[in-house]
Amino acid sequence: MASGQQAFLIITILIIGPISNVFAQSIFQIYPENLISDDRKALADDDGLFCDSWRLSVETNNAGVWYTIPTRCISQVQDYMTGDKYRSDSKVVAGDSLAFAKTVEIAGDGLDAWVFDIDETLLTNLPYYADNGFGSESFNETAFDEWVDLAEAPALPSSLSLYKELQQLGFKIVLLTGRGEYQRNTTEKNLLFAGYSNWERLFLRGASDQGKPAIVYKSEKRSELINEGYTIHGSSGDQWSDLLGFALAQRSFKLPNPMYYIP
Amino acid sequence: MASGQQAFLIITILIIGPISNVFAQSIFQIYPENLISDDRKALADDDGLFCDSWRLSVETNNAGVWYTIPTRCISQVQDYMTGDKYRSDSKVVAGDSLAFAKTVEIAGDGLDAWVFDIDETLLTNLPYYADNGFGSESFNETAFDEWVDLAEAPALPSSLSLYKELQQLGFKIVLLTGRGEYQRNTTEKNLLFAGYSNWERLFLRGASDQGKPAIVYKSEKRSELINEGYTIHGSSGDQWSDLLGFALAQRSFKLPNPMYYIP
Repeated sequence: MASGQQAFLIITILIIGPISNVFAQSIFQIYPENLISDDRKALADDDGLFCDSWRLSVETNNAGVWYTIPTRCISQVQDYMTGDKYRSDSKVVAGDSLAFAKTVEIAGDGLDAWVFDIDETLLTNLPYYADNGFGSESFNETAFDEWVDLAEAPALPSSLSLYKELQQLGFKIVLLTGRGEYQRNTTEKNLLFAGYSNWERLFLRGASDQGKPAIVYKSEKRSELINEGYTIHGSSGDQWSDLLGFALAQRSFKLPNPMYYIP
Repeated sequence: MASGQQAFLIITILIIGPISNVFAQSIFQIYPENLISDDRKALADDDGLFCDSWRLSVETNNAGVWYTIPTRCISQVQDYMTGDKYRSDSKVVAGDSLAFAKTVEIAGDGLDAWVFDIDETLLTNLPYYADNGFGSESFNETAFDEWVDLAEAPALPSSLSLYKELQQLGFKIVLLTGRGEYQRNTTEKNLLFAGYSNWERLFLRGASDQGKPAIVYKSEKRSELINEGYTIHGSSGDQWSDLLGFALAQRSFKLPNPMYYIP
């Protein structure tokens, strides 16, 4: 076992408990029938109520590992993603992030970093997921890569505003994505198309990163930045695996994403 | 500086970033005007939409430190806490917790622990907060202690069900509360009144714990348990300071609480 992985496993027990050791779980275990009294059942039978609670359990990382959204929640997830709530939730996260960013004393040595994930953080793949069941269908890598190759994913507007505000405040922007090196050109093209520019660094999965859980790969890349002298003041991502692990940012900001889970 | 505190500060930088170093923030910074385009403003002007997003930012720990709920959200927080949503959200957290608990291999050596916070986790102080603005008024320790002395706080029903299920599965229940040792008798009386029994240990703040942030005090107590040989499989609390820090549980479960924040 590589020492990096060893370090990860040790730290896992201390820090990453929330998303470790539950790979046997499925979303359908979240609401075990045997816990449902008549009172619970009444609530459980209300799809709107249950699906809002399920979404909260996903956003707080209580749900643990899950694979597809509950069938009963497909229309609620569609309404959430296509309505005002997703935009409002994303904008409040951007507001939280900027409020913190303004309290940071920028050293001005070019090493004040803010790390952004890309998919469902800077860019939204909603056009793809709208055509593919909003997370109710299991992930189709071939179909998704074809969508990525179009380089047409729009910016999440509140993230684009935040990105520009952070640059004005003097932060260096580091992009850290689970996309592969083979997607570097199309990813850069899409980012520029969506209005992003002047990032400091773009990390994509290289050959040596294949097969690593996102939380390991992303923690290792943040470690590299810290070893180079960067201070990672903030980190923004739609997955807890963007934010937890080791070499964490001073503060992490969880963007909403009820459509899929990445360990 | 005590080495314990030193260790905490070091670990803080690595782990607790999300809730450190933002003590200058107030909830009203969460939605900075200068980030609000006309489009943002339209959303920001909708209290229902904003207050739902604000609640999500609190539950995901994006909000950082905050003191009282936004004035515009008082009626929404009241509706949330007194309606079906709070009960449904709490029940789904209990469902997540039990689903995980059932995957745990109980060693059966009497050292398989599950840690519960008390206020807004096992017990609900909703009757008190309903009379005191649902978190819109700054905390009145004297008035709250008078309420605690009544020992009449009801159980959060889903937590009581979970508590009993965990005991049946063979977990030892450890209670870890920010209440003081001087409240031990009334706290035990209230727990029994609410239907809780046969806990393994009840930690309250002693003389040496005064003035410590909850996240330090609670991490130190979890460390004591681990040093005694306990495995902390799960931890349940309504505050991130119940769940983060060091000596973390294998998995942590965040119960909803939009009424107050404890660092």
